[in-house]
Amino acid sequence: MNEEKLWCLKEDGYHAELHKYYEGLFTQGNGYMHVRGSFEEGCSDAPQDEEYLRFPDNVTLEKPRHPKSKQGTFIPGIVGRHPLLKEEIINLPFYLGLEFRSGGESLDMDRCRISSYKRWLDLRDGSLHRSFIWETAAGMRLYCKYDRYISMADSHLCIQRVQIEVLSSEGSLEIKPTLRADVRTNGMSHFARITPAAEPEGSLSLDILTEEGNQIFMLSTLEVSEAVTWQGEHTAIMASLRAECPLKSGDRLTVRKLTAVTTDRDIEEGTVRDRGLLHLDQARDLGWEELYHRHAAKWKSKWQDADIRIQGDDAAQVNVRASLYHLIRSNAERDDRVAICAKGYAGEAYFGRYFWDTEINLLPFFLHTNPQAARNLLLFRYHTLEGARCNARNYGYRGARYAWESSLSGEEQCANWQYADHEIHITADVVYALYHYMNATGDDEFLEHYAIDILVETARYWCDRVDWNPEGYGELLGVMGPDEYLPFTRNNAFTNRMVKFSLEQTALCLSKLLHSKPEGYAAVAERLDIRPDERELFRHTAEKLRLPYDSRTEIVPQSDDFAQYADVEFDTLWTDRSRPFGHFISQERNYRSKALKQADVLELMLLFPQEFTREQMKAAYAYYEPITTHDSSLSAAVHGIVASWLGEKEEAAKFLQRVMAIDLSVEKKGAAEGIHIANCGGLWQLIVYGFAGMTSAMWSEDLHLEPRLPAGWEELSFPIVWRGDRYRATVRPDAYEVTKLDRRKSDASQTI
Amino acid sequence: MNEEKLWCLKEDGYHAELHKYYEGLFTQGNGYMHVRGSFEEGCSDAPQDEEYLRFPDNVTLEKPRHPKSKQGTFIPGIVGRHPLLKEEIINLPFYLGLEFRSGGESLDMDRCRISSYKRWLDLRDGSLHRSFIWETAAGMRLYCKYDRYISMADSHLCIQRVQIEVLSSEGSLEIKPTLRADVRTNGMSHFARITPAAEPEGSLSLDILTEEGNQIFMLSTLEVSEAVTWQGEHTAIMASLRAECPLKSGDRLTVRKLTAVTTDRDIEEGTVRDRGLLHLDQARDLGWEELYHRHAAKWKSKWQDADIRIQGDDAAQVNVRASLYHLIRSNAERDDRVAICAKGYAGEAYFGRYFWDTEINLLPFFLHTNPQAARNLLLFRYHTLEGARCNARNYGYRGARYAWESSLSGEEQCANWQYADHEIHITADVVYALYHYMNATGDDEFLEHYAIDILVETARYWCDRVDWNPEGYGELLGVMGPDEYLPFTRNNAFTNRMVKFSLEQTALCLSKLLHSKPEGYAAVAERLDIRPDERELFRHTAEKLRLPYDSRTEIVPQSDDFAQYADVEFDTLWTDRSRPFGHFISQERNYRSKALKQADVLELMLLFPQEFTREQMKAAYAYYEPITTHDSSLSAAVHGIVASWLGEKEEAAKFLQRVMAIDLSVEKKGAAEGIHIANCGGLWQLIVYGFAGMTSAMWSEDLHLEPRLPAGWEELSFPIVWRGDRYRATVRPDAYEVTKLDRRKSDASQTI
Repeated sequence: MNEEKLWCLKEDGYHAELHKYYEGLFTQGNGYMHVRGSFEEGCSDAPQDEEYLRFPDNVTLEKPRHPKSKQGTFIPGIVGRHPLLKEEIINLPFYLGLEFRSGGESLDMDRCRISSYKRWLDLRDGSLHRSFIWETAAGMRLYCKYDRYISMADSHLCIQRVQIEVLSSEGSLEIKPTLRADVRTNGMSHFARITPAAEPEGSLSLDILTEEGNQIFMLSTLEVSEAVTWQGEHTAIMASLRAECPLKSGDRLTVRKLTAVTTDRDIEEGTVRDRGLLHLDQARDLGWEELYHRHAAKWKSKWQDADIRIQGDDAAQVNVRASLYHLIRSNAERDDRVAICAKGYAGEAYFGRYFWDTEINLLPFFLHTNPQAARNLLLFRYHTLEGARCNARNYGYRGARYAWESSLSGEEQCANWQYADHEIHITADVVYALYHYMNATGDDEFLEHYAIDILVETARYWCDRVDWNPEGYGELLGVMGPDEYLPFTRNNAFTNRMVKFSLEQTALCLSKLLHSKPEGYAAVAERLDIRPDERELFRHTAEKLRLPYDSRTEIVPQSDDFAQYADVEFDTLWTDRSRPFGHFISQERNYRSKALKQADVLELMLLFPQEFTREQMKAAYAYYEPITTHDSSLSAAVHGIVASWLGEKEEAAKFLQRVMAIDLSVEKKGAAEGIHIANCGGLWQLIVYGFAGMTSAMWSEDLHLEPRLPAGWEELSFPIVWRGDRYRATVRPDAYEVTKLDRRKSDASQTI
Repeated sequence: MNEEKLWCLKEDGYHAELHKYYEGLFTQGNGYMHVRGSFEEGCSDAPQDEEYLRFPDNVTLEKPRHPKSKQGTFIPGIVGRHPLLKEEIINLPFYLGLEFRSGGESLDMDRCRISSYKRWLDLRDGSLHRSFIWETAAGMRLYCKYDRYISMADSHLCIQRVQIEVLSSEGSLEIKPTLRADVRTNGMSHFARITPAAEPEGSLSLDILTEEGNQIFMLSTLEVSEAVTWQGEHTAIMASLRAECPLKSGDRLTVRKLTAVTTDRDIEEGTVRDRGLLHLDQARDLGWEELYHRHAAKWKSKWQDADIRIQGDDAAQVNVRASLYHLIRSNAERDDRVAICAKGYAGEAYFGRYFWDTEINLLPFFLHTNPQAARNLLLFRYHTLEGARCNARNYGYRGARYAWESSLSGEEQCANWQYADHEIHITADVVYALYHYMNATGDDEFLEHYAIDILVETARYWCDRVDWNPEGYGELLGVMGPDEYLPFTRNNAFTNRMVKFSLEQTALCLSKLLHSKPEGYAAVAERLDIRPDERELFRHTAEKLRLPYDSRTEIVPQSDDFAQYADVEFDTLWTDRSRPFGHFISQERNYRSKALKQADVLELMLLFPQEFTREQMKAAYAYYEPITTHDSSLSAAVHGIVASWLGEKEEAAKFLQRVMAIDLSVEKKGAAEGIHIANCGGLWQLIVYGFAGMTSAMWSEDLHLEPRLPAGWEELSFPIVWRGDRYRATVRPDAYEVTKLDRRKSDASQTI
């Protein structure tokens, strides 16, 4: 019971205005596919096929639509073209459909007489549960219990069960399972051809051809505990079955729906239809118990590798697990053609695109819990190098320039030019992450076969991107740093440092390779057509690239021109601190003001902690925090970590609450449009880098902790992979220990 | 004959790839309505109803569609909403339609056997003429002559005539007049209801209701020199008549089409239909000769007020007249609810919106040729003050902020935020223009009743918009000056000087009014709710607003941070100087580079010439001209004027050629999307301020010339209105004279 409290996210009572939030928060998935936590029966007054143009507004100022319900079914890699937003992940047909009707009344959480409503997501196995009592207009009282999960063992399968018990009276119940293609993504339909079918033996299918040419096949079979006669029916966009079932008081009815989803992206031969049938057949051969057993075992193993245990703070415990759950769920560990999109595939916002989140916010978690997944995330960047080259060419540069918002192919998709054009640090962030991976794992082969291509090509871009001032220093002009409230600054400290690092390491790696493995170097030089003078160009550019600070700078400036921006009267403008500052100021005014959207200098200090004195860190925190609005979800975790490092326990604890509230606060409804997955990664970093004080693998060969637990935390314990070995770190207020682990798998124990 | 050469724009031979250019260049109009120079029969393979989304791209980088033909029928004030572009002037139904068919072959300039093709726009009366020989497939040779004009006397009327002479053979000719609503504006249809009708007695009508609720009524009657039997027909979007006419060798046939266009915007009572009938009846009562006579007399009078005569440069003569023609045509002198849109109502580009062009580029021409028109242009700003207040509120400021791209109501329509947000000088440009008008006309009442409201409200905005630096100086941060290639600068010299002027004059005017006319001041203070301390606030802000230069500055910097932008290797990047520089560089790189789109500091010197030394002007020209790309059509005239002032005759002459080429060069096809009307105003300024050296009425009470004629010009002569009196200035290389004129009207002499 207590254990359940620490593992379950709960919704008590149904509130329509919170439904979209819970749909996001209760998103289920297995890396391959993801489905928002919508009701099986839908909401009768929230059509999913509304046609409109979603505009590519500035993120802070965007006012997305908030219909009562927004379903979401996503398969990373299945994308379409939106006329304004460019490439977007397609919201696929809704395959959870399971509707009930009795005495002319359709089951609907809003319109029917519903009581004892409860819903919970069990994080242990990613299963979603709902129970309530439906008192029908005709007077039957039905206890309904829904359970569903997307299999972690066979990632193409979704398993649903509904149990109904007649508490009193009697009547007839119509069961109507559906597969519905009346779904649009940000107002657009991406389906070129829809072929629905329904067979009276109890199966449904939907064969979809997208405008981009992808095939998606959905196939469901139904199993009912009573003998029923199905009637198949289909419209142009929906397949459904109907069956009537007479019920009397005390009857119990169980309906199971098993759905297989396959696409042309994940089969090498045969048809999507054959493959779908195969998955269903295999599942039926296994039976419900074994199916669940294999699924739960997978989840158990994942939790063994990733779970953070907190004693003394139950709220934090479950919230941290919610973040870990979404991190685990979002990761397509067997597919390096996709990475993790900014909303963790839990909504239409950010359009399924890849940002710097991957490298800076998510990577550390995967590096230290699932290095293979980390490797895949970086291979995604390797595979999209050609797209990055294309971006560089489009801007008139040599080399490769990673996209601020990356498509599947690596090409820039950001429809707001101020980010696409000026937030160039992403290209250096990728290189930082490559190093982080190599240092954390010791995967030495990675450099020569993958990383070096990215290093050299991005270094070429930087050499073209740098302007040389009359004093002979390289400068980066027209830059937006991580703080997106200043779009056009001169020598952003974070960006310049990252670029300098990137160029330094490229020159260094080439030198090392040349001396340690001349034949390897020769192969690389030929593959990348490296000119003899290029190494020196990289080194020289790195050396001469201006940094707007040194070790004596008291307050590290965000950029060379930061002092010239206007001061902000926050108290006058920001009259409601529960809403983003960006809502209270025009973009124009904001862009010329010293109001930060998020950590910028502090982010720099987080990534290069050894280069700053404690005094500089303290001064930066004291100066920047009061002018930082934290309008970005990336900000709180960084502040929490730096506060923790500075021994500011109360500040750190405040930011811990803030981090957890971003998706989990019912007031903020932050998860409505999807999960702030970078913040989930940030929470892991806050705990591991902040509270446990682990030195980043960037800067230390050894696993080193320097714990500063929040008040009230009795024990913090987490597994960590360090250079190929698994450890468990256990931290108590007065002591800590790190134990090397033998890995062992145990079985799952619960069955749906 | 020679006279004709100096008054006619000619097209010799038909070239499909130039057709869209000539459609723009040959636009006819009378202030009330404007029609592009399309063929009466259309082009068979250029449908006008293509559906697409025109994107709000950066102007330089936009690649508009270039179908072979783009018709355009515009009535200023009739606008619709485009989903991406916002408010746009509606391209109305095409009412010129007059098609011919013989032996199964439709007359088409591309597909038929056409010879001796000639077309010319006669600038004297704005009439458009076309003649050619059509050898039909069946072997008839027909000499066809088309004439049409939009009446300057009754602005609702368009008169068309086609004369056909059978040169050889015989056959039947089908005549098909049409009114066609198969027209979209930038890919969008704005017609909510279309009611076409065709009557066998020879009339056609189209009744349109726009989505915004405007009614447009088009009514045509046909008159044929031979008795014909009309058959009426109409589809959902088109009304047409058909008649067959047997012809034999030597026959002459004349077809006349008379069309009246009325809208709900221009009638106070009755229906648009009744009003249209009335215009047609009145026209028929007058007869064709008198109808033309009245039209031509109006044009003659307009030319008397505006014509610039150049002896010794025939090419310049006709080109200058082309610009004057479009200026005269564009001006709706009886309607102060509209101004002159950036394309002179000759195309869909710029969407019918109002820019700073009005105040800075167009106003001088009207001030000195048609002061009532100038007044109306400024009254448009007065009437849209509420829209400007709304803009200020939307940005979080007090007062009024004029729109970079103004709608009819004054509200901001610019879809590219960098201009809308940062190109704030427009608000000061309006104030500069108010002063210019008051100084040039001596219209003293204007201040108290109209201008003061704009002055006070815009001053309030500026006081909110200014940031105060630690030294106690006001600054304007985040500003785009006239040079739109630097979007985000600090203290742009042009902008700050204009704002300082604006604030100075507001404070001064309030003081003057208070002392000279206390009761007038009291009324104004009450109307505008002027606080006691506001005058002092305006004065103080004006005084303390930083200028990045003073009289000792050697090279006036474009902005405080101009030196920090990157130098540009133009020779490497700009490989084809016949195309805009903006095509050879990404916006990102451009925005951080010292490449100017257009005059900025020179524009400042043009507007405040007395504040700069000759040395400063010379230095500015020498420094900025080589880094100015002139990608904007506003640039060349300014450079020409300053070059002229500096005695750089060759430079000035070079820019004169450049100015004239902008719309008139067949190679550039600049007029394809409409007329660069600001450049037309710029050409007038180049001649009057530059070559004749007239001191601006801003800075001189007396009409004062300081001529510097281009080489080869034997005589330059133009009329000028100065403080209510009319003069003629005549300039020869060695002398000049200014004669006060008695105004006298003479009759027109030509008849269509």
